[in-house]
Amino acid sequence: MSDPSRFLLPHISRMKGYVPGEQPKQGEFLKLNTNENPYAPSPLVLERVRQACDERLRRYPDPDASGVKSRLSKLFGLPVESILVGNGSDELLNLAIRCFVGRANRVVIPHPTYPYYEKLVQLQDGLLVRVNFEEDFTLPREFIDASASMTIIANPNSPSGTLVSNEMIEAVATGTEGVVILDEAYVDFSDVGGLQLLERFPNLIVMRTMSKSFSLAAMRIGYCFAQPSVIAGLAKAKEHYNVGLLAQIAAEAALDDLQYMKGNAERVKKVRTDLSSELRRLGFEVWDSAANFVLARIERPKAADIYGELKRRNVLVRYFDDPRLRDCLRISVGTDEEIAVLIEHLDEIIEKR
Amino acid sequence: MSDPSRFLLPHISRMKGYVPGEQPKQGEFLKLNTNENPYAPSPLVLERVRQACDERLRRYPDPDASGVKSRLSKLFGLPVESILVGNGSDELLNLAIRCFVGRANRVVIPHPTYPYYEKLVQLQDGLLVRVNFEEDFTLPREFIDASASMTIIANPNSPSGTLVSNEMIEAVATGTEGVVILDEAYVDFSDVGGLQLLERFPNLIVMRTMSKSFSLAAMRIGYCFAQPSVIAGLAKAKEHYNVGLLAQIAAEAALDDLQYMKGNAERVKKVRTDLSSELRRLGFEVWDSAANFVLARIERPKAADIYGELKRRNVLVRYFDDPRLRDCLRISVGTDEEIAVLIEHLDEIIEKR
Repeated sequence: MSDPSRFLLPHISRMKGYVPGEQPKQGEFLKLNTNENPYAPSPLVLERVRQACDERLRRYPDPDASGVKSRLSKLFGLPVESILVGNGSDELLNLAIRCFVGRANRVVIPHPTYPYYEKLVQLQDGLLVRVNFEEDFTLPREFIDASASMTIIANPNSPSGTLVSNEMIEAVATGTEGVVILDEAYVDFSDVGGLQLLERFPNLIVMRTMSKSFSLAAMRIGYCFAQPSVIAGLAKAKEHYNVGLLAQIAAEAALDDLQYMKGNAERVKKVRTDLSSELRRLGFEVWDSAANFVLARIERPKAADIYGELKRRNVLVRYFDDPRLRDCLRISVGTDEEIAVLIEHLDEIIEKR
Repeated sequence: MSDPSRFLLPHISRMKGYVPGEQPKQGEFLKLNTNENPYAPSPLVLERVRQACDERLRRYPDPDASGVKSRLSKLFGLPVESILVGNGSDELLNLAIRCFVGRANRVVIPHPTYPYYEKLVQLQDGLLVRVNFEEDFTLPREFIDASASMTIIANPNSPSGTLVSNEMIEAVATGTEGVVILDEAYVDFSDVGGLQLLERFPNLIVMRTMSKSFSLAAMRIGYCFAQPSVIAGLAKAKEHYNVGLLAQIAAEAALDDLQYMKGNAERVKKVRTDLSSELRRLGFEVWDSAANFVLARIERPKAADIYGELKRRNVLVRYFDDPRLRDCLRISVGTDEEIAVLIEHLDEIIEKR
């Protein structure tokens, strides 16, 4: 019997799977590798989700996540028709590329950025156009591609934590005939945001997530904002019951307790400053971060060795097998205590060499 | 500014959205329209999910849903490599069509069946081939299509509740060069199942869900079984964190309390028998159902009018705007008490005419 994987479409066969950051099963690791929030979700979220664990689970959830959308609408002053809720912003990114990018269509992304974008382009058999960030993580003018079907900018960017200026975002949105995705997964840790651009740039889609600032990575909640006709297109292509009931209840409660998220984001920003200083003291070059992680560069000892040594000490940070990032580690911002432990280990590791 | 929906791919623009059954916000309706289980989920599920509502929600879930897969593996005697877990079986159907069906590729489905299949074909810009069921809901020989990239059989079928014989499934799997999806969403209410066919037919994918028999529609849990190389292809194309933590915990607990599900399925089967008899007494023609709903046909009064009158009385059943189903109602099996209420209303409505 011949291998049944021959049934797969050729561009799917060619794909490599995306490898997410390690998720060890148990809590013995200090986990600074996947940009999770170090603080628990709002007590209001936990209480409301617990209370919803009853007979209701037998029913299908609201296909429109209306309760989430109405809160987002009020919060951001945008009509509900301009909002879509997804099973994490990953689902919304996936949906967008499926609706806007056909075979061999150009998709422009910077490099390095969130590796998932590349996989999404492969899924559509699109044409990936990677444009290198400058050394300081600004975008070169050639990033603006008139004939791209889609351009994706993570802002703040991962793994650099850096920001693209609103001027550049506007130049991209003006200079392309296609759609521009602004992935604001980390925006709550910054002082910026692109929602006010939506009115002027009809080709813009702004994506956000509750995985980072709202401490709800386990619940898979993302949302996006765009012109109502764009949202209507995405909505008819989505799986109808894409967001489960408990995820909707968690999202509603999280938005009802916005101050809690904001307080945590402030704490993260404070620890980020301390972490950056400590890393610089240790000899790392650290890019100014607007996210809940920092990218730190060091030549000796080798970043890969530091990564390995930290892992042996049960501390997980992220190392990327990529020429541009060969000397870099991406470190999520933990609690004060967690960062103190990390720095203690780094002190030892770097001193030893 | 021109309409930004012009950015949508042409085949997406052409799509109509799938309209799921009505989900009224509040509980004043007797809801027999979306095949939800009338009984609550297992107490073990509710307890375990409640207990998991804590600090863990800040973390990403296991991308492989290993705990769910290991239980399914043990339960069905299949290797974990032959199992994939999804955000409802809808996600897995979506993933399968994306991996196996290219533009203009043929996808064969019977008619009438689950309307979502048609939407999935449109999403891929595939070529939909609808083959009418015979009057008795058996499949004609022309359903076997050698050149189809995919053939989909819901077994038991919705909205008919009827079964396709294993002989016919084998004939389809043998007679096509493409993949065959066996959607067993309702299988736990029947006495059949196609898992034992997997070994002999490498092009077969069997899909299941926890939405119906396990009373967990709100949690969005589906899984599928296929050859390991097929599963590997699907797995690399899926969103990495597609199933949230609480959904995984619910699924694990549900599988740990299988007897509870089986007890409920037996109750549903018993009520289904009573419901079918009562409907026949009222003058409906009722197909023998192997699912948790029945399809009932009547010419006078008109099915659409009965549907409307029931809705005015706060009873929701499903009416399909389709020539083949014009005289039919699909009625989900509720509790004894719910079905008694339905029959009382139907007695009045039909007598009045």
